[in-house]
Amino acid sequence: MDMNSNNIFPLESDFLNKYLNDWEVDLTHVSIRELNRLVDELSEHFDVEFLRFEFGIPGLPPNKIGPEEEIRILQENPRIPSTYPPFDGIPRLKEAASKFVKKFMDIEVPPKSCVPTVGAMHSGFICQSIVGRKQPESNTILYLDPGFPVNKLQTKFLGLQEQSIDLFDYRGDALINKIEEIFSAGEIGGLLWSSPNNPTWVCLKESELEGIGNLLTKYDVIGIEDAAYFGMDYRQDYSQPGIPPFIPTIARYTGNYFLTISSSKIFSYAGQRIAITVISPELMEKRYKNLRQYFDTERIGHAFVHGGIYPTTAGVPQTPQYALAALFEAASSGDYNFLEEVKVYSKLAAKIKIIFKKYDFDLVYDKDMGEPIGDGFYFTVSRQGMTGAELLFQMLRYGMAGIPLSTTGSTREGIRICVSIIRESQLGEMENRLSALNHHLQPNPV
Amino acid sequence: MDMNSNNIFPLESDFLNKYLNDWEVDLTHVSIRELNRLVDELSEHFDVEFLRFEFGIPGLPPNKIGPEEEIRILQENPRIPSTYPPFDGIPRLKEAASKFVKKFMDIEVPPKSCVPTVGAMHSGFICQSIVGRKQPESNTILYLDPGFPVNKLQTKFLGLQEQSIDLFDYRGDALINKIEEIFSAGEIGGLLWSSPNNPTWVCLKESELEGIGNLLTKYDVIGIEDAAYFGMDYRQDYSQPGIPPFIPTIARYTGNYFLTISSSKIFSYAGQRIAITVISPELMEKRYKNLRQYFDTERIGHAFVHGGIYPTTAGVPQTPQYALAALFEAASSGDYNFLEEVKVYSKLAAKIKIIFKKYDFDLVYDKDMGEPIGDGFYFTVSRQGMTGAELLFQMLRYGMAGIPLSTTGSTREGIRICVSIIRESQLGEMENRLSALNHHLQPNPV
Repeated sequence: MDMNSNNIFPLESDFLNKYLNDWEVDLTHVSIRELNRLVDELSEHFDVEFLRFEFGIPGLPPNKIGPEEEIRILQENPRIPSTYPPFDGIPRLKEAASKFVKKFMDIEVPPKSCVPTVGAMHSGFICQSIVGRKQPESNTILYLDPGFPVNKLQTKFLGLQEQSIDLFDYRGDALINKIEEIFSAGEIGGLLWSSPNNPTWVCLKESELEGIGNLLTKYDVIGIEDAAYFGMDYRQDYSQPGIPPFIPTIARYTGNYFLTISSSKIFSYAGQRIAITVISPELMEKRYKNLRQYFDTERIGHAFVHGGIYPTTAGVPQTPQYALAALFEAASSGDYNFLEEVKVYSKLAAKIKIIFKKYDFDLVYDKDMGEPIGDGFYFTVSRQGMTGAELLFQMLRYGMAGIPLSTTGSTREGIRICVSIIRESQLGEMENRLSALNHHLQPNPV
Repeated sequence: MDMNSNNIFPLESDFLNKYLNDWEVDLTHVSIRELNRLVDELSEHFDVEFLRFEFGIPGLPPNKIGPEEEIRILQENPRIPSTYPPFDGIPRLKEAASKFVKKFMDIEVPPKSCVPTVGAMHSGFICQSIVGRKQPESNTILYLDPGFPVNKLQTKFLGLQEQSIDLFDYRGDALINKIEEIFSAGEIGGLLWSSPNNPTWVCLKESELEGIGNLLTKYDVIGIEDAAYFGMDYRQDYSQPGIPPFIPTIARYTGNYFLTISSSKIFSYAGQRIAITVISPELMEKRYKNLRQYFDTERIGHAFVHGGIYPTTAGVPQTPQYALAALFEAASSGDYNFLEEVKVYSKLAAKIKIIFKKYDFDLVYDKDMGEPIGDGFYFTVSRQGMTGAELLFQMLRYGMAGIPLSTTGSTREGIRICVSIIRESQLGEMENRLSALNHHLQPNPV
């Protein structure tokens, strides 16, 4: 497919509008998958490669540790593929996860508190089902937005309610105060956030986590910390196991938490759908009467495993559990510096940001409590006076795709840029397209 | 561990009662996992092997086709473990599933209608979430009982209602009439059954499926056919691909069905959690307004994939999908006679049944529409005048475990016997224990 865009871009507005109409796609509410399909089609129609900033998928192959461990198990233990996995996970993975969070977060949780799920989505689903049902009156999930749209689809699936705080407007003390204001109404069962954040790469500070932790305890709300990008804030070096600084986490500040660690991004293992949920040891044993009607038990740890994992998937596939155990073990021993391996995204983000800024794009979420935002998997861009949908429309005309912030719970207009599958060799063409788009967007283009 | 039971059995009633009290286990409502744990403990405490009729797990290692395909993919395609699976499954598996059901059931469904899930449990969960929510008034799942208790835990998780018909009381026209009576009240969203049935090995007849299919269409109820034991009714030879007789299925009689085919039992692949749901092509395109609030769409096919699979697990692990594709392909081509391979269960069941009968146990579900019940993975036993819990208590004293029918939705008293992990070499010891138990249960034991 031709990477060279001469003669093709910009696509005719009328043509693109007709395409969107035919596909019943509304760019303000477009899902990632709809956009993927649309861009596939456009790319094929014009026989040209698009710059696909819309995907949020790993761009790297996995380290060999994972596949090699799965192969070893399949070759040496023929009974394992035929044996139902323990619902709470294989002991080796539970042990490895417990050590991993000790080494990189400096938190102490027993293996029993570490439960694998079929990817982080499965974890979030079960976590929400518990936090939103522990008391009949607190059936609302509070989101620190913007966020990953599918978490809200989980809220819908479960018949729960949602509320949102935009991190653009609230950070530091203002964030804590705002959360307390909302918690105090008694409707919130759980608070969900990711840090580093998808799509903005905002990272919550220890002081914020401390304030949030205190409120979770005070109002008996459960925190769901989605560590999809575990340690990938490269403004600090979190890559040395057992050596400070340690990755910030809510686990230091409350006993009311679920912590989800996905293998998808840090280990590039998205295809095998494997993650770990750390259930706070204190939370494991907590009981809520209202859980019984949904989970046949009042105890949260039991509700997660026997009331959650059992009826949804009856456990997590065996060999991916061994792969994740091997990855955790190698990372904890220092043999495998996973944060160094995925640092490529950060380096690429720095370069791509410069090009966007050169052509008069602004960063939407540009500051992180006064500091410049870090370079990671994602960042957010905007153009003055344009909605995200309008900007996406123009970007598509110039062969580029991204996710409108309107789909992420943001109150701001703009586009999420994911750098993960962009290649260094595409940066020249990117510059050409952004330059042409910038020219086109001038008040009086020559 | 000692298989020889001299001097150990019977365990003292007082001792066992104390054990049950300490563990807070009530044998009438005991879950399989609780029982597993209890028997593990007893077995360790007395250093003696129990006869574990309570497990419903494959006793065979998998055929090499599955593991070898996973190994091949992991070795040859390093990108696959890092790439999110398509939410509706990899094309090769969809294609293979479509051919497999054509060859063994003689039904025509396009690959698009075949969607993998993380085991059959995942399928049942999503199916129930759709059928129970398609209309606000029809939020009840009707079960043809007895059945697998965890399906009812799914109903609970989803906040749906359940009703039950016991196949002991209703077969043939009486079954159809009873179903119609219940359907006509308008509260039923879905009808769920397995055939061959867990725990009784009852198999629905074509005439029954035809009657049920007509009612599903007439009352717009959706059938969920759980084919966990696909083709394992050995009274017929279903093992030749493309050659009659074909496996009975609801798919011949209505467009309102989900059909779930698990790899766990037929391919002994329970550990990798992989199944296929066939969504009737007609049902794929059906729309219900009430689905939108839960799935962001009204169309059932879309609700299953984007509203169901996406928010629960974001797809099914990649390499198990390739394994299942390879197994389907080899079965369809005739290279791999899976039904011959798992026939070992049927042969073992025949032998074990004879021993139970010899020592005055009765079969509870003994007839299948006038014919003797087939020999398969499970059968059901009872003793005159004893509840299932009482019988289980006595069996435990003599080193044997099974599942009380009270936990399966049965209106009858008795025990489910699963033969899958019993070894031929244990049959002598089984006879000793059953003989001793029978002696003990005589009105005036000498």
